[in-house]
Amino acid sequence: MVEQVTLSLKDAHELSLSVLQSNGFNEDHARSIADVICACQLDDCHSHGLYRLLVCTNTIRAGHVNGEAGVTISEPSPASVHADAHGGYSLVAFEKARPLLVQKARQMGIAALAINNCYHFSALWPEVEKLSEAGLAAMAMVPSHAWVAPAGGSKGTMGTNPIAFSWPRIGEKPFTFDFATSVVARGEIELHRREGRPLPEGVAVDSAGNPTTDPEAALDGAMLTFGDYKGSALSIMIELLAGPLIDDLTSIESLEFDGGKGSTPYHGELIIAFDPHLLSGGRTKENNARAERLFSQIVDQGARLPSQRRYEARAKNLKRNAIEIPKALYADILKLLNHEQVT
Amino acid sequence: MVEQVTLSLKDAHELSLSVLQSNGFNEDHARSIADVICACQLDDCHSHGLYRLLVCTNTIRAGHVNGEAGVTISEPSPASVHADAHGGYSLVAFEKARPLLVQKARQMGIAALAINNCYHFSALWPEVEKLSEAGLAAMAMVPSHAWVAPAGGSKGTMGTNPIAFSWPRIGEKPFTFDFATSVVARGEIELHRREGRPLPEGVAVDSAGNPTTDPEAALDGAMLTFGDYKGSALSIMIELLAGPLIDDLTSIESLEFDGGKGSTPYHGELIIAFDPHLLSGGRTKENNARAERLFSQIVDQGARLPSQRRYEARAKNLKRNAIEIPKALYADILKLLNHEQVT
Repeated sequence: MVEQVTLSLKDAHELSLSVLQSNGFNEDHARSIADVICACQLDDCHSHGLYRLLVCTNTIRAGHVNGEAGVTISEPSPASVHADAHGGYSLVAFEKARPLLVQKARQMGIAALAINNCYHFSALWPEVEKLSEAGLAAMAMVPSHAWVAPAGGSKGTMGTNPIAFSWPRIGEKPFTFDFATSVVARGEIELHRREGRPLPEGVAVDSAGNPTTDPEAALDGAMLTFGDYKGSALSIMIELLAGPLIDDLTSIESLEFDGGKGSTPYHGELIIAFDPHLLSGGRTKENNARAERLFSQIVDQGARLPSQRRYEARAKNLKRNAIEIPKALYADILKLLNHEQVT
Repeated sequence: MVEQVTLSLKDAHELSLSVLQSNGFNEDHARSIADVICACQLDDCHSHGLYRLLVCTNTIRAGHVNGEAGVTISEPSPASVHADAHGGYSLVAFEKARPLLVQKARQMGIAALAINNCYHFSALWPEVEKLSEAGLAAMAMVPSHAWVAPAGGSKGTMGTNPIAFSWPRIGEKPFTFDFATSVVARGEIELHRREGRPLPEGVAVDSAGNPTTDPEAALDGAMLTFGDYKGSALSIMIELLAGPLIDDLTSIESLEFDGGKGSTPYHGELIIAFDPHLLSGGRTKENNARAERLFSQIVDQGARLPSQRRYEARAKNLKRNAIEIPKALYADILKLLNHEQVT
């Protein structure tokens, strides 16, 4: 049993802000990062929760991310928004571009947001969930570093390439999913390494291409995609849409750009927003009922909706107004506050 | 060894046209169907090849599909096209709406085509491949009948819900994939039943929810999604985007609409087109090189690109100017021409 520390939601957010601001992120950046990692921790998404303070701090200390970068927004067309993050994290760029994306999706039925030149470490579901709170359906995707082998191969080529999707439900929290196209997220392998636990089978190969359950060997070798050749094809699609389509780096290039420093991936992000009102000819209510019937049939047979577990964790943590993190992680976070090194 | 019959490409196309026209499809519909099933047969995609003449003919004989339906095209917004198929197959609607979709994608960077009220039986790759021939990237998806259980469930709820994607390559055939989010396509299970072969493990459950390799039991039970809960989530996304988003039926409703007749699914289709030129700020050549580097790294490690096997079959069949189909299928097709029943 890993020993835990309990923090109130307010304390967790303030601690996150302090760590980030004392390590070189300006208020805009610190707030957008703290918001997202606290939202993840609130939903018990540990791999994208407060643990990421370590990653963000190590990245800015390595001189990689710009903690004071502004964002340049432009409109290449009535259905597309472009946000240049200028070497900052993607989160501020998303926040600044979001109102325009929502407006364009409502006017056009479909709209795309391309974020360029950003460091990226965050879960995608908080972004698509926000768009669904505005009544839109949304899809988001990013490459990462070339850690994942294609089906039939053994060499890190694609990123862990998450894809997230959200659908707005009238009177309910959105239907939302967010998963890596690798079998597990990179953060999961790092957590296993930190905790000295072996990986499940089928997750990775070592540097010689042999199956391995050793997290260290997996980090030196290549991860595998979920769903064999189908998951591999999706992962390649994400490389193309969130890379060359929007004039930004592939995972191969992101890893090269990193140059062995082990920092956060640097690349682009593609977000597509859909307006159910415009695209259904205004029959939003009838079509909401249609979607609800699908969700009911899934739940009634004992299956779970993708977001169900997160929403249950959220309700539990909101009720007690607190989150829990491992004591060792808490100690590491306090070290960051005192400008000590954490590896 | 199944005995085969060899047909020249011209003969296969003319035979398809004759079967379709003599069974109630007008020239527009017959041509669009014959084009697509011959394209699939040319690429050795047997489950979407000439075998589908049986399905199309049985569907129109059951009075389900309208073989003379016109198409109504409208433009809900500068970035969206709507094609009402009026109870015909989707293919004519796609062909009529395609020029407008291409034009809008080039002007807007991203555009959506919603096809409504269509019967659908065809592979999606010929459609996205055509869009890539116009220099666009494209994604297409459809629901089907509620044959597939969600992860953790055992009841047919989603369709086999294929998703296709295509990326234009300068001087090369597009990078294209098209796969069912079920482990196998419904057509594969039907082919196994026709040929009396057992299914692979992990493909389906029987009506009691137990794993089965018997094609008949699978057809009575539920199919499973690829990639466990991730594939299941994608399948639900496809239900929502190609159903309620565009005011059309879910797979549950399509199966109800069918009313036990065993005809082709009836629903909508969503196609999203992206212009790499506009979205990359005109840097198409540089980004093509970036994508080609990704493809090279995949192929150089001995892995295959998703479309590679199809393109090899296409080259082989074009060279000999012929396709092969099982002798029993050929006999059945000739029966259709003579207005006999084939089950």
